[in-house]
Amino acid sequence: MNFLPREPLSPVPPPDNSHRPRVRELGLEIGIFPPGKHNAITDVPGVSVGQVTLWHGDGPLQLGVGPVRTGVTAVIPHPGNTIEQPLEAAADVFNGVGTSIGLHNVREVGLLETPIVLTNTMSVGTAYEALTRWCVERYIADPASRGWIAPVVGETCDACLNDIYGFHVRPEHVLAALDNATDGPVAEGVVGAGTGVRTCGFKAGIGTASRLLDYEGAQFTLGALVQSNFPGCLAVDGVPVGRELGVIDPEYSAGSGGSIMAVIATDIPLDSRQLGRVARRSTLGMTRAGANGSHRSGDFYIAFSTGCRQRVGKGVFGEIRRMADEYYLTRVFQAAAEAVEEAILNSAFKAVSVTGRDGNKVEALDLDRTRDILQKHGRRLKQ
Amino acid sequence: MNFLPREPLSPVPPPDNSHRPRVRELGLEIGIFPPGKHNAITDVPGVSVGQVTLWHGDGPLQLGVGPVRTGVTAVIPHPGNTIEQPLEAAADVFNGVGTSIGLHNVREVGLLETPIVLTNTMSVGTAYEALTRWCVERYIADPASRGWIAPVVGETCDACLNDIYGFHVRPEHVLAALDNATDGPVAEGVVGAGTGVRTCGFKAGIGTASRLLDYEGAQFTLGALVQSNFPGCLAVDGVPVGRELGVIDPEYSAGSGGSIMAVIATDIPLDSRQLGRVARRSTLGMTRAGANGSHRSGDFYIAFSTGCRQRVGKGVFGEIRRMADEYYLTRVFQAAAEAVEEAILNSAFKAVSVTGRDGNKVEALDLDRTRDILQKHGRRLKQ
Amino acid sequence: MNFLPREPLSPVPPPDNSHRPRVRELGLEIGIFPPGKHNAITDVPGVSVGQVTLWHGDGPLQLGVGPVRTGVTAVIPHPGNTIEQPLEAAADVFNGVGTSIGLHNVREVGLLETPIVLTNTMSVGTAYEALTRWCVERYIADPASRGWIAPVVGETCDACLNDIYGFHVRPEHVLAALDNATDGPVAEGVVGAGTGVRTCGFKAGIGTASRLLDYEGAQFTLGALVQSNFPGCLAVDGVPVGRELGVIDPEYSAGSGGSIMAVIATDIPLDSRQLGRVARRSTLGMTRAGANGSHRSGDFYIAFSTGCRQRVGKGVFGEIRRMADEYYLTRVFQAAAEAVEEAILNSAFKAVSVTGRDGNKVEALDLDRTRDILQKHGRRLKQ
Amino acid sequence: MNFLPREPLSPVPPPDNSHRPRVRELGLEIGIFPPGKHNAITDVPGVSVGQVTLWHGDGPLQLGVGPVRTGVTAVIPHPGNTIEQPLEAAADVFNGVGTSIGLHNVREVGLLETPIVLTNTMSVGTAYEALTRWCVERYIADPASRGWIAPVVGETCDACLNDIYGFHVRPEHVLAALDNATDGPVAEGVVGAGTGVRTCGFKAGIGTASRLLDYEGAQFTLGALVQSNFPGCLAVDGVPVGRELGVIDPEYSAGSGGSIMAVIATDIPLDSRQLGRVARRSTLGMTRAGANGSHRSGDFYIAFSTGCRQRVGKGVFGEIRRMADEYYLTRVFQAAAEAVEEAILNSAFKAVSVTGRDGNKVEALDLDRTRDILQKHGRRLKQ
Repeated sequence: MNFLPREPLSPVPPPDNSHRPRVRELGLEIGIFPPGKHNAITDVPGVSVGQVTLWHGDGPLQLGVGPVRTGVTAVIPHPGNTIEQPLEAAADVFNGVGTSIGLHNVREVGLLETPIVLTNTMSVGTAYEALTRWCVERYIADPASRGWIAPVVGETCDACLNDIYGFHVRPEHVLAALDNATDGPVAEGVVGAGTGVRTCGFKAGIGTASRLLDYEGAQFTLGALVQSNFPGCLAVDGVPVGRELGVIDPEYSAGSGGSIMAVIATDIPLDSRQLGRVARRSTLGMTRAGANGSHRSGDFYIAFSTGCRQRVGKGVFGEIRRMADEYYLTRVFQAAAEAVEEAILNSAFKAVSVTGRDGNKVEALDLDRTRDILQKHGRRLKQ
Repeated sequence: MNFLPREPLSPVPPPDNSHRPRVRELGLEIGIFPPGKHNAITDVPGVSVGQVTLWHGDGPLQLGVGPVRTGVTAVIPHPGNTIEQPLEAAADVFNGVGTSIGLHNVREVGLLETPIVLTNTMSVGTAYEALTRWCVERYIADPASRGWIAPVVGETCDACLNDIYGFHVRPEHVLAALDNATDGPVAEGVVGAGTGVRTCGFKAGIGTASRLLDYEGAQFTLGALVQSNFPGCLAVDGVPVGRELGVIDPEYSAGSGGSIMAVIATDIPLDSRQLGRVARRSTLGMTRAGANGSHRSGDFYIAFSTGCRQRVGKGVFGEIRRMADEYYLTRVFQAAAEAVEEAILNSAFKAVSVTGRDGNKVEALDLDRTRDILQKHGRRLKQ
Repeated sequence: MNFLPREPLSPVPPPDNSHRPRVRELGLEIGIFPPGKHNAITDVPGVSVGQVTLWHGDGPLQLGVGPVRTGVTAVIPHPGNTIEQPLEAAADVFNGVGTSIGLHNVREVGLLETPIVLTNTMSVGTAYEALTRWCVERYIADPASRGWIAPVVGETCDACLNDIYGFHVRPEHVLAALDNATDGPVAEGVVGAGTGVRTCGFKAGIGTASRLLDYEGAQFTLGALVQSNFPGCLAVDGVPVGRELGVIDPEYSAGSGGSIMAVIATDIPLDSRQLGRVARRSTLGMTRAGANGSHRSGDFYIAFSTGCRQRVGKGVFGEIRRMADEYYLTRVFQAAAEAVEEAILNSAFKAVSVTGRDGNKVEALDLDRTRDILQKHGRRLKQ
Repeated sequence: MNFLPREPLSPVPPPDNSHRPRVRELGLEIGIFPPGKHNAITDVPGVSVGQVTLWHGDGPLQLGVGPVRTGVTAVIPHPGNTIEQPLEAAADVFNGVGTSIGLHNVREVGLLETPIVLTNTMSVGTAYEALTRWCVERYIADPASRGWIAPVVGETCDACLNDIYGFHVRPEHVLAALDNATDGPVAEGVVGAGTGVRTCGFKAGIGTASRLLDYEGAQFTLGALVQSNFPGCLAVDGVPVGRELGVIDPEYSAGSGGSIMAVIATDIPLDSRQLGRVARRSTLGMTRAGANGSHRSGDFYIAFSTGCRQRVGKGVFGEIRRMADEYYLTRVFQAAAEAVEEAILNSAFKAVSVTGRDGNKVEALDLDRTRDILQKHGRRLKQ
């Protein structure tokens, strides 16, 4: 058993998935709100995403050697100093079977003060240390004045395909994901923290989507990014595609696992309590996409707002602008549920088949058959 | 304004709904587990249900006069003395916009020690006092020895149709519902606490369903009963029936409201922690049936097990039998989600149209058109 | 057994306790912050308190007859229409063994929209209905436009002295407590909802205290009111008075019970998340006063701010002013813990001995001996 | 700024504190229950503790160089394979300002399946990875069959004395702490994860205590171990020693921080729900020792029972033995509060003064003056 430090693997580009459409490119509209420009979490102004994909070896599992099918996905909430200018935020947990770091703190103080890093379950420690280093170097001029920070790290388990106990994610990979973050389109499917995961029996991974909402003549954006890895029976716009394809992952076979980590960003002015309610609606999106709420699926959600910063300076009191719950917040909840649902579907639509450790293969969703099923169920698709 | 006590209304039989099928009678199978004998919460041995329906007057709302469209539904967890033989239980809350009583205590001590009474939001106080009286009279031989009990009362808001501030539910009605509880089939739709409520824009009310699960050669039952009153877009077996019918209740129009109260019973040996996880899966059933997670919908769940009683006698320690979470509990979660989903659908399928205060009319789901839509979406139905 | 409605008892004045000092009148200073004018929750501008005391009969417990030692205490958060102008609020529960109503809603929407009524455990239903009626009559011009409200009712158990299952608190008493609410000094000890309760083996009841805090040259007030009924070993300014007097109430003797309901009001601008953190610090005050955290003690806290109203009018967005957590909130936490501690002590210092049902007698704290003990432990007292 | 991996520091023996008594050696008895043989968490049969102390350099803070005042403390819950034989467990959080790992999972599944490692805040990632490696190597015969584990890591912040962003805790140190775990006496004060922490303005660190309880003629043990680092005003057996010494740490000065991590072990048969209630009582112990509940103090508790293992084998159902809440659990709560209180006091009594980064010095509690104060307050001490 080799647990000693090793040369970090070189990241690879994610497998080509340009031939696979996103769900909306089929002509389906998930929910009622229109998407933003890139239909991605990066449509929320200031939000950027960086990813590093690790892929190495084939064949039998050798602890510390491979095969490796894993990676890192980083969400940077705004381009400024997040320690000095934290964002109103909240977290919610549907099923706590997981090892996310930092959510207790986000809930208590109502703030997100670092980027969010997603990776595989056993690598959250590495990610935490690397993210801390990255934040200290960039954001903390005088370490003596700031005794600690609270990095946020999420995870799901990719052990089905990946040598998860081999700790192949090294600090370099986390730093690289943070450093390469950009706005604009976000790579989906078999990429970053989604490289080794699956959903409802199909290969899945990273997915994203966004929604536009108008209030008082102004346009706001809500975006979601998911690391989608939960069991169940895939549903596309309500159509039981998994059932029709005979692919159901109930998660009571040995060795299977699951989870989802959902990140929701918005520029709608919402305070921490409201964002907690928004995060909680991720369960609706996950359910609509087919989740069965299994025992082992750790379902963790975090939501933040770029539009509700307390203007406090150094004073005791500050003012925040926020939405009224009554009459208005339901639409935000709907948008969040839709965005999470579509992000999950994109994670599967954009994912190619992957063979990993011990020859375990997780097939991609067959999109031709999916089109047929959707049409049989009365959905009109683009040709 | 008349808030003084008045002659209690005489309960009425619920409107005839024998012409309306339950969802399964159409040939649809919701989920993967088979239902019990009556497909009702009463399939769990020992559980009984009693209901009282109040219906009086028409026309404009007159506070304290009517129109009245409300009632009481009582679930008695077992035929014995529930104070002396409480059941392992738990509660979960998806959205806390409601006024249920007793859930804090159920969570803390892990026990249900009284029947559960459901009624309209403003009548939970009356129900609490009446339920207390009923329990003291039946279960407490020496009141001096037992300083207090913790009755459980749930509610949703029927103000759309009912003179809710008129407090037409009187203690007599609560006592009657408790006294008339029986096992066997449960009346659904416009009955009891469901008389004035609606779901996803359609008239709904009380619904129930059950599931059978086999473990180690023994058969267990899980049943759900719902007071279904949430907004959204009705989905039947995943088919967006509400969307196709053009009926969506987003709950941001003035005067609308919502909520669900779900009661889950099972004879599977589960402890309080496990039952809390089971209760939480009600959100999956509610979402599949079309909920949009609206701001005003108070979504409260309670679950209890008749199969996990601590054999303590008067001693310090006792033994309980319980399921292992790993490998086995996911199936219970699935059964709970399915049973809640089907119970909600039954509440709408069995509900007739109702006109209430101020001439407000909530239409029943058109089952002929629903059949057509289901068939268009590839569902094979019974003729 | 007589559970039928009866003639409501006439309220009585609380027993004379003018000879008993409040704790601060001994020369003790609890904590570090100075008290407000009345050292009462009513020092927070706009907050008023009303109480009704019920006392009837002696001798053996006769269900529905007596003896009666109970009452109602109402806290009205501001003199305006609390439905139309709700206050930022939160609730916290240390031990959920109780039956408070409305706390789920306060937590979810972050608002208090009615007065808070305290009474005995079995009378929360009556209080809920009466409080609803009071609010509808005063605050809701058009009941058709407002489908429900969420009254807040708290309780502790006075069964040791009171015929608690006799339901002697009737709606009239609740309405009277609300109607007679005033600002200025608050009656303490054996009064209102505190008539039949005890703390750490001594007679206790209602207590209150307040604290002044300066921020940026402006003075703010935080006040607490408690219905103090928890077991343990009384400590006064850290001195184990109960231990020295040989009076410890461990709450594992039959028939004993406990709980605390604490209400915290402040004009410091705090949002719901912050107020939840403030409420949670009530446990510190309760612990310092001697609580042992017993199984049966239902410890419920609610906090609201009159200084953080969202200026929303009818618009989507509004601004709130609020404190920064960092650097400043700790002092609010300290003030809350101190105020709760002193309120508890006042509830015992001002309480006279009471004999109730079945001749059960709960002795008042012997203040002469308490003075001696305090001096023996190095406390300098006023002569 | 140097964040690259470096040669791990060699652990050092903790500073000699043999001249400093534990609190009980003064003749004080904290609470009412007697302590176990070593008055330590290791009095619970099967529980062992291992610690590694890191101490390097003096003078100005140089990131990645030092000064170093930190370490690792590991609690191993039983000598067997904790993955295959997890223990019933629970966690509770009083104030979530911290970055503990694994508590969501403990709460959800009710089990502790790894040792618990405590360290400084920024080193939880390192500890997580090392603990994972240690568990995989020892406990998991076939990594392919077990996709993930949920290590539990706690922390408090030692930035006042330690170069916390220098990441001086390396995996080797965590492995060493785990490997050197023993039962018997536990080193307290400036040792392991307590090397750089303080409490109420005094140097503190690791402390432990235990309590014996009899039930039905059998003796049970409950033990606590704390990493004590919270602000406030130190109280010893209720005597305000900090106030008398003029040492109060309110935690609103710049650079200060706080927190407590409490681990409670017992062989009393308690299930997860009950253990959560036990853990929650840690707040009472912390409060009695002087905590002020400050904003920045992350207060995390975990409790486990060695006496409530489910005898499931590979079957669906199993039996557990557990205590009845009513009548019996209050005593466990009291014992837990006492043990945590005494563990905190021991952490300060046994801690010597330490000078750390930038010459920051945290003075030890002056025990001579403490004796005088205690006697002045009526406490009889051993000579």
